[in-house]
Amino acid sequence: MKEIVITAKNNQKIKELKALISSAKARKNSGFFAVEGVRLCRDAVESGSKIISVFYTDEAQEKYSEDITLIKNAAVSCFSVSGEIMRSVSDTVTPQGVICAVKAVKNTFAFKKGGKYIALDTLQNPDNLGAVLRTAEALGIDGVVIYGGCDMYNPKALRASMGAVFRLPVNISHNLINDIETAKLLGIRTYACVPDRDALGVTDADFSGGAVCVIGNEGNGISKDIIDACGESVTIKMNGRAESLNAAAAAAIMMWEMEK
Amino acid sequence: MKEIVITAKNNQKIKELKALISSAKARKNSGFFAVEGVRLCRDAVESGSKIISVFYTDEAQEKYSEDITLIKNAAVSCFSVSGEIMRSVSDTVTPQGVICAVKAVKNTFAFKKGGKYIALDTLQNPDNLGAVLRTAEALGIDGVVIYGGCDMYNPKALRASMGAVFRLPVNISHNLINDIETAKLLGIRTYACVPDRDALGVTDADFSGGAVCVIGNEGNGISKDIIDACGESVTIKMNGRAESLNAAAAAAIMMWEMEK
Repeated sequence: MKEIVITAKNNQKIKELKALISSAKARKNSGFFAVEGVRLCRDAVESGSKIISVFYTDEAQEKYSEDITLIKNAAVSCFSVSGEIMRSVSDTVTPQGVICAVKAVKNTFAFKKGGKYIALDTLQNPDNLGAVLRTAEALGIDGVVIYGGCDMYNPKALRASMGAVFRLPVNISHNLINDIETAKLLGIRTYACVPDRDALGVTDADFSGGAVCVIGNEGNGISKDIIDACGESVTIKMNGRAESLNAAAAAAIMMWEMEK
Repeated sequence: MKEIVITAKNNQKIKELKALISSAKARKNSGFFAVEGVRLCRDAVESGSKIISVFYTDEAQEKYSEDITLIKNAAVSCFSVSGEIMRSVSDTVTPQGVICAVKAVKNTFAFKKGGKYIALDTLQNPDNLGAVLRTAEALGIDGVVIYGGCDMYNPKALRASMGAVFRLPVNISHNLINDIETAKLLGIRTYACVPDRDALGVTDADFSGGAVCVIGNEGNGISKDIIDACGESVTIKMNGRAESLNAAAAAAIMMWEMEK
């Protein structure tokens, strides 16, 4: 395995890595994304994802030698960089000193009768998106549909997901209404989760034959045509006074009720 | 109402405001905290909190004139500042242009028979803390005990709480074990929430006579002496493979099960 030392901040590889961290467009166009930190980089390797390149500092190699060796062995190219370059690239305040460029994951899935799914309509906040993916994995959700909003390869979303991105069945949807229709054809119930006290309470919903629950955007909820496509609406009945739950908290309660 | 124009970045009032935003110690020593943004500043006013001072830009005054007037009328001192000073102080990337210094809230509570409470053992992440407070308010939890960890006046916690800090009964605890003993004396059950598959499932727990559920630190969980003090442990049974839920997601599911 060849190891290349990069000393210039304006090195082309460093520029490309920066773009993968900061730009959803660069991720989409290249089909690659950046993964930072020992734990997430290991998750990437262990998931069988293709590791295009790894960038690491001497300090990281010393401190996490076993992990870095494992990551380097999986990577096509290995680049040693200074702490200064690492800090200029990193998305974190105190970087651990290892970042990988990884080929986008393809854990797509097809709806199955009886399956439990969550669909996200234009979630904007990467922390929320990551939190939903983490909870979905923990609770054993069969698949997550992401429609619009921020991408799951956003560094904050990756961190909040605790690596769920590498393991969880996820579809990136270009037409959520079509997906909802597909689920319905399989006899899967499709519920729009709405902050509406008159809607069906989640404890009265029937998830026994499988379900898709749609969670809406943080500010605007679910778009009307998607609510209409679902046909059924469900709500988390609240005793308190806040207007609505945070999207990640609402998703956690919905998934819990689907899976328990 | 007197309006003072501040033009110097190193003005003493600006320095004090910065400290309230960035330093938990400054907040603790002064008994004040900073609230940023139109919505949160309004929440502060509407909760009856004492508004020590308001700092605002001309642009904010024009854009949110009704809100700013309401906030100014409630404030002891009003300071007009430039956009540049506002940006140098603000905790956000694109400041709305209004920040208040507010006297710390005193919504303390005493445990009551039959009450449903959540207690947080050393939650470190302000986003998690704020999310828990928001969910607690939405679901109608009777009170939150905060023990150690980050403070609820941290700007990120305030934002994530959506102003719940101003309305929710909250005790800052200096001895969580004492609090647990007090609850027990009232016949309130005290549960430690643990990621332990052998613990009692949350759906089998008895919340009918009131309960305190303790949620642990993001990395280390609940400290052993607090688990021992609780006497009973409860867990969220998971079908999936993640080691554990995020603290805010776990708290959301626990509070949901307590309140539904």
